[in-house]
Amino acid sequence: MFTEVKQTSKPLPQLVSEEIEKLIVLGEFKPGDRLPSEYELAQRLGVGRSTVREATKALVSRNILEVHRGNGTFVCEQTGLVQDPLGLRFQPDKKRLGLDLCEVRLMIEPEIAALAAQKATEEEIARMQALCDAIEEKVRRNENYGALDQQLHTLWAACTRNAIMPNLVPILSQAIPLFIDITKRALQMQSLRTHQAVVDAIRARDSEAARQAMRVHLEDNRRSIEALPDDDS
Amino acid sequence: MFTEVKQTSKPLPQLVSEEIEKLIVLGEFKPGDRLPSEYELAQRLGVGRSTVREATKALVSRNILEVHRGNGTFVCEQTGLVQDPLGLRFQPDKKRLGLDLCEVRLMIEPEIAALAAQKATEEEIARMQALCDAIEEKVRRNENYGALDQQLHTLWAACTRNAIMPNLVPILSQAIPLFIDITKRALQMQSLRTHQAVVDAIRARDSEAARQAMRVHLEDNRRSIEALPDDDS
Repeated sequence: MFTEVKQTSKPLPQLVSEEIEKLIVLGEFKPGDRLPSEYELAQRLGVGRSTVREATKALVSRNILEVHRGNGTFVCEQTGLVQDPLGLRFQPDKKRLGLDLCEVRLMIEPEIAALAAQKATEEEIARMQALCDAIEEKVRRNENYGALDQQLHTLWAACTRNAIMPNLVPILSQAIPLFIDITKRALQMQSLRTHQAVVDAIRARDSEAARQAMRVHLEDNRRSIEALPDDDS
Repeated sequence: MFTEVKQTSKPLPQLVSEEIEKLIVLGEFKPGDRLPSEYELAQRLGVGRSTVREATKALVSRNILEVHRGNGTFVCEQTGLVQDPLGLRFQPDKKRLGLDLCEVRLMIEPEIAALAAQKATEEEIARMQALCDAIEEKVRRNENYGALDQQLHTLWAACTRNAIMPNLVPILSQAIPLFIDITKRALQMQSLRTHQAVVDAIRARDSEAARQAMRVHLEDNRRSIEALPDDDS
């Protein structure tokens, strides 16, 4: 199962982490599986334990492995999914970044809504409605609903049955709270209305109405970013 | 500039890497900058050198820092940009993945072409044409043109003046060679024609024609993935 790694120009720990990654890609270890112990890996790969330890750390920092203290090292469930892989937090001009994100989301999310209208199950539609209601409750209590908002958009993405969408949408939406002051009452009320319009269109299996409702929702967001002062430092 | 990190529930190296990352996000270290030496960082952060070393390694593996041997540690130019952040290589069903990627690209890239028709400079249009010509040359010599193909799509993305597109498009297109046998002559000829049609429409500043030409190009790709056998193992 393991091939012994040989020293080439690459550092040994990198070779070991590539070897472990390859075994995950090939499906020999699956999400949720526990890896053999450090000692066993070292023996099978013909390297020292400190090399295995270093290789493991590199894979942990890339969300491929996770360490459960006292229980061993496991393959992550969402293997290789990285927070903020586009380096959005390193973009200096936050207002421009917000507008650029809106532009990308306006290409993708209306189409997601249209597909969701065709493919969502009754159970998924019930979950959307529950999330809308929970967001309304948060707004009423003046609490932050950012996490619920992201869950709703990710659920819509999952309804497309496209394996990439539910990974892509959180990447594009996680940065939004950086720009939009979701404590602004007017925007909150707009969001409640437009979220509900998307869910209603999906429930009615009306793709075109879902696409339009999502477009209106995202354009509300865009306008509130456009209204920010240009000097955001 | 540095705040001393204090032990909380998180491991010390993680606190140190978060501290360094924060300084990059805040712009105190910019892409291409050299970090202070390990010794200096250890002193300023009030930790041991081995902790600094471990923190640095974690940031290197996330493409935030890079080590130039004998020359120090630098902030990456494309800070935090991660290869395959969607974990595409871990998806077991490659054919389905290919079709899902086409679906996402069909949402984004026709709009990119339309924006490029409005915003590309003459110099960019000349570079597009040069890439088309170079791809044609590769095809004539029966050589792999995958890297040039990706450069062309990334150039189109850059012409939108949207900071996210040139990071997003390579993520979505890098996996394509996994599915499409670009040695197939018919697909190669199609690609040459449809790439040229996109460039011609951009040169003519015709957004609608550019959108359509890109759609045709991506639908050719999709059809050749659909034609693959279902059992791709």
